[in-house]
This record gives sequence, structure tokens and C-alpha cells, in this order.
Amino acid sequence: MTAVQALAMPAAGAAFETITIQRRALRDDDVRIEIAYAGICHSDIHTVREEWGPITFPLVPGHEIAGVVAEVGPAVTRVRVGDRVGVGCMVDSCGTCDACKDGQENYCRDGAVWTYGSDDVDGTTTQGGYSQQVVVAERFVARVPDGIGLDVAAPLLCAGITTYNPLKRFGAGPGTTVAVVGLGGLGHMGVKIAVAMGAEVTVMSRTRAKEADARELGATGYVATGEEGALEAVASTYDIVLNTVSADLPVQAYLETTRPRGALVNVGLPPSDFVVSPWSVVGGSRIVAGSNIGGMAFTQEMLDFCAQHDIAATIETISADDVDAAYDRVVAGDVHYRAVIDVTSIGAAATTSAH
Amino acid sequence: MTAVQALAMPAAGAAFETITIQRRALRDDDVRIEIAYAGICHSDIHTVREEWGPITFPLVPGHEIAGVVAEVGPAVTRVRVGDRVGVGCMVDSCGTCDACKDGQENYCRDGAVWTYGSDDVDGTTTQGGYSQQVVVAERFVARVPDGIGLDVAAPLLCAGITTYNPLKRFGAGPGTTVAVVGLGGLGHMGVKIAVAMGAEVTVMSRTRAKEADARELGATGYVATGEEGALEAVASTYDIVLNTVSADLPVQAYLETTRPRGALVNVGLPPSDFVVSPWSVVGGSRIVAGSNIGGMAFTQEMLDFCAQHDIAATIETISADDVDAAYDRVVAGDVHYRAVIDVTSIGAAATTSAH
Repeated sequence: MTAVQALAMPAAGAAFETITIQRRALRDDDVRIEIAYAGICHSDIHTVREEWGPITFPLVPGHEIAGVVAEVGPAVTRVRVGDRVGVGCMVDSCGTCDACKDGQENYCRDGAVWTYGSDDVDGTTTQGGYSQQVVVAERFVARVPDGIGLDVAAPLLCAGITTYNPLKRFGAGPGTTVAVVGLGGLGHMGVKIAVAMGAEVTVMSRTRAKEADARELGATGYVATGEEGALEAVASTYDIVLNTVSADLPVQAYLETTRPRGALVNVGLPPSDFVVSPWSVVGGSRIVAGSNIGGMAFTQEMLDFCAQHDIAATIETISADDVDAAYDRVVAGDVHYRAVIDVTSIGAAATTSAH
Repeated sequence: MTAVQALAMPAAGAAFETITIQRRALRDDDVRIEIAYAGICHSDIHTVREEWGPITFPLVPGHEIAGVVAEVGPAVTRVRVGDRVGVGCMVDSCGTCDACKDGQENYCRDGAVWTYGSDDVDGTTTQGGYSQQVVVAERFVARVPDGIGLDVAAPLLCAGITTYNPLKRFGAGPGTTVAVVGLGGLGHMGVKIAVAMGAEVTVMSRTRAKEADARELGATGYVATGEEGALEAVASTYDIVLNTVSADLPVQAYLETTRPRGALVNVGLPPSDFVVSPWSVVGGSRIVAGSNIGGMAFTQEMLDFCAQHDIAATIETISADDVDAAYDRVVAGDVHYRAVIDVTSIGAAATTSAH
């Protein structure tokens, strides 16, 4: 066991505290990672605020992890000490079911072990990446290609794969049109990846406030959805509408902006059900879909794609002291576009308590 | 103009009458078809009963048409007099928009001209296949391959393409599992085509009444959805659930029977909206989709596929006198599995009136 410092939420509605947590002794196939950066995902906020249900405190969030391999178990073959690596939303799975064998570890029949707040195979509860180190089974370690900084790589492990997966699945590429709804942590990666894939990209956002930003990221179209008749004006236009907003939206109205045979793909989790008209879905051969991260091979493919196309997350680096404030700024849509914690600042300040 | 006999619905709720209609003089790219058989599609019934909105009477339904080329315009190159051919749900489209150029004439930006009850380019209203002849632009004429009888080919022009299209689109094939909901005209073609594609096929039907039929068609699984817990027992099982039922079903419950990354594809048009949970759609990367016939190149591909795999519709041949009764039997789910009108019987009996 190794004691490491971590940023933990002690109770719902509290502020983060620095605590000491234990990382397990390495199993044969384990990798110990010295974490350099951890991205703040909106899911972290939903989780520690118990908006998705009750959790066990204290909890260390963080599933956008980038760092350097510090130690490997004897059976580890794919990475070596000193390698630059990343860890995303999962840290283990059965490895033997049809989903795991098919590279869809996120749909492991036994349930994947999520990076934080999840029951691990040894009965402990997982603790995430807002910490100095993490120990992870080799299968869940991705390589960060040369040319991507660890700070801008961290958000790719969740925001990157979350948007890359459906864009690839539904065929974004040259000759296709993609609309990205929402320009936050997920949305900005969706724009960058869709542009890199060769699609013609439009950003949909409530006001014109983000138009200049959208165009700077490579979008050629912009729809201010709060303007009267804005969505009607782009009816039957897009092959893919990638909805990254987790608030309730008028799903039917967005679906109508897809071309026949087009897809509205949701990657956020809004509170209310999706309600759509059969005439629009069946008559237009349209797709209402969702997408939830991706398997490990696909995650590696995404990282390699980003390196090839010289893209990564656009971030604000913050210190451990700023996480509480950053949470509020994420909720307010005020971060451009991902807050990433410099993990070396953990333990360097703030209250420290032993658990 | 050529006068031909046709079976027309004179008013909502009336019985069919034999009337004389005019088929236009051939344009350069037109094909005159001597119709041999016309299938009865549930859409015909919805339409003439004004269940999908008001229509103009008298109307000659029928968009599952098979026959023999009787005459061709001077610019026709793909078919010759004597060829065995079929016509489906469309008889014209602009031919120049992105959808038409992409082989998706069913999504022509100007709107396709549907085979009956539709505004034709010359301002007339189209009249369908329950008639001795039809005149159709060559682009909307498919070849019926040798080895498929015209009687069993007719339903392929709607029921065949309606089920083939989504099964192909969503990847039915060896190693995949497909559930077909409903075993009527559409459903039985869905089973045959999915089996021919190499998928493992299950039929879902309310009771066990159709189990023997389902297995005879090649299904290896059967779910009686009216039995307590039946759908729950097959949670996360199928890659594709093809819903051919046009009554309201608990869409969420059927969606849950798809595997992660699976698709629930609807080809019927139920009265109520589809309502699904974001947790199921997003969390499971699932797809709720619809599908509406298919373009002409794809229709030809489907006919060739059926010939290659020695499949076609399973039908009951009826005469012009039996159409009213057949409509009631279709609605009652009593036809195995498609009623096909022997068009040579039109005008041989029944009342004849000139219009």
C-alpha cells in the first residue's frame, strides 16, 4: 500500500479537502502512475453533488487522468516506467465477457469498475484522479502520443472519447455536415474532432456569445438557438447533430435539423425522457442515439487520431486550491473549455487530514 | 392516354369498385407495365380509411406492383418489352437534388411522387397498382430477377425493402442477433431477410400463437411478449430489434432488450410519440431509429439479394372480389402473410363504372 495525497469531497455541499488515501500494492498486471494532470468533468460535479444519486463520502473524483508510469507489475508488457499515459473512466472489467472481448469494456457484463466511487474487484471503493498517484490494471492504461502535452491530453480521456466515438460511429467525415450543440468541455472537443475528420461543422448555442470562439475552433456555421425560428431555418440540414448539453432540450426540434437518415446523438444525461415523433423518426429514417465514452482500443485510437491531427483540449490549468471555484464556473459555462488540475499542487497547500 | 380498369375506393368506409382510369401517353423515359399482381400493404388500408388524414376519392391504392413491360419510351435503356419488373412506393422524383443523386429518391428535396394519392409532376393525382396497367418513369422500375415469381415478388417492393434497408443499415449478419417484433406482412419478410443475412433471429409476438410459424420461417428464438417478465428475461440481448408493429408499444421496454450499442428500429407508424429514457439511450449507447422504404438502387439490391437467397414473400393470392374482405383480415392479423391481388381478375367481375 502506498499513501498518497488526494483532493476529496468530504460531504455533499462541502468544499474539497486534501486527504491521504492508500493506493494498492501492485498486482502482476498493475501500473502505478504518477499523475500530472486531472481534468474536471461535469460528471465529477453531478456525482459529488449527489445529483445522480447518493454516494459514499469522502470521494476523490477525476477520470481524465494524465501522468507518467512510475512502476509496473511483472506481467505488464505494453508500458514501461517513464511512459506518458492516461486513464479515463474505467480502471477494470472482467475481461472475459462478450463485451470485453469485443473491446467494449465500458459494457462489461459484470459492470466495469469505474475510476471513482465504484466497487473495485477487491471490495474497496475506487478513488479517482484528483490525487498524486493511481494504480490501474494495464488494460486500462492508454498511451499519450508524443506531441500531446499531458495537461491538454487529460481531458481527452473522457471528453475526447465521448465525442470521438459517436462522430466516428455515425460517419463524420468529408462531405458530411455535423452540428455540435453546446460549446463546453465536450462540445469544444466535438468541434475539433469533427473538423479534423473533415466534416463541415456548425455550432448550436443559445446566444451569439460563443460565435467567435466557435469559428476559431473551426466551425463554419453557427446557430443561435434562442433566436426565433433558428432551428426551423436549418431543418433537414445535418448528417449528425451531436448534443453535448445535459439540460433538457426540445429533442424533437433538434431531431428535425438532421437530414433524412441523419442522427441526433446525445452524450449528456438530461433529467427528462426523450420524446420524439414517429413521423419524424420513421418517416425520415432518422436516428435518436446516445453514446457513453468508449472501449480502451477505441480510446487509444482517439488519442492517436488527436496526435495525428495536432489537436487536444483547450484548457485552463488550475491549482488544487481553485477546484471549488472551478466547479461553480463549469456549471456557469464560464470555463474555456476544460479546467485541468495541476496535480503537483495537491498537498502543497490546503488543509491536510488523515483518514 | 390509355383507359385501363382499376379497383378504386370511392369514399371513406365504402367498398371497392372497378372503375376506368387513364394512364398517360408514354414520355420518352416512360415504361408501360402490364400489371400481374399487386400486394395489399397495411398502408393502403390506413390511407383509404383516412386514418392518416383526408384523401381525394376515388383512389386506387397499391404500391407493391409486379408485372411485365408492355411498351417503352424511346429514351428507355434499362428495360425492354417483355421484361419482368416491379414498382414500389414511388413513381417519380426530381432526380437532381442531393438526395436523388445519393440514391435516396424517397427523400427527394422536392418530395418524391408516391405511387398513389400523390401530386404528379403533370398536376394529376397518382393512382396505384390495383389496376391493369401503370406508366412509370424508368428510374422507378426495378427488375424482378429470374427465379422469383411475380406474385411473391410484388410484396418485396414495399415489405421487402422496408425490412431489408434497416437490417442492412444496422449490420444484421453472421454473429448478430435480431429480434423481429410482429409477424405480419413486414415481420415475416424481416425474419426471412435477417435469416438469409446470417443473423440469429427471434420473433416477438404477443402470444405463442405464431411460434410454430416463426420457427418455420427460420427464427430460432421466440418471445411471447404478453407473458409476465418476458421482455425483462431478454434484456440487453439483441443487436437489432426490428419493430414492425404500427400500434403503440412500450418502446422503452423493447429498447432495453437491445444490447449496448444496439438499435431499436421502427418501421411502423404508431399513433403516439416514442418516449425513451436518456439513461438507457446514452448510458447504453443505444439507438432508437426509424426506417422508411429505400431508394431505387437499394430496392434493386434487395430484389437481387432475395433471388440469391431464394426467398420471397409468403402470400395468399386473392381476386378483385376479395379485396374488401382481405382488408379486414389484414387488420385482424389473419393473413399469412401478405394478400396479393391477381390483377387479371380486375374487370372480370364486379361493378364497372366509367369516370
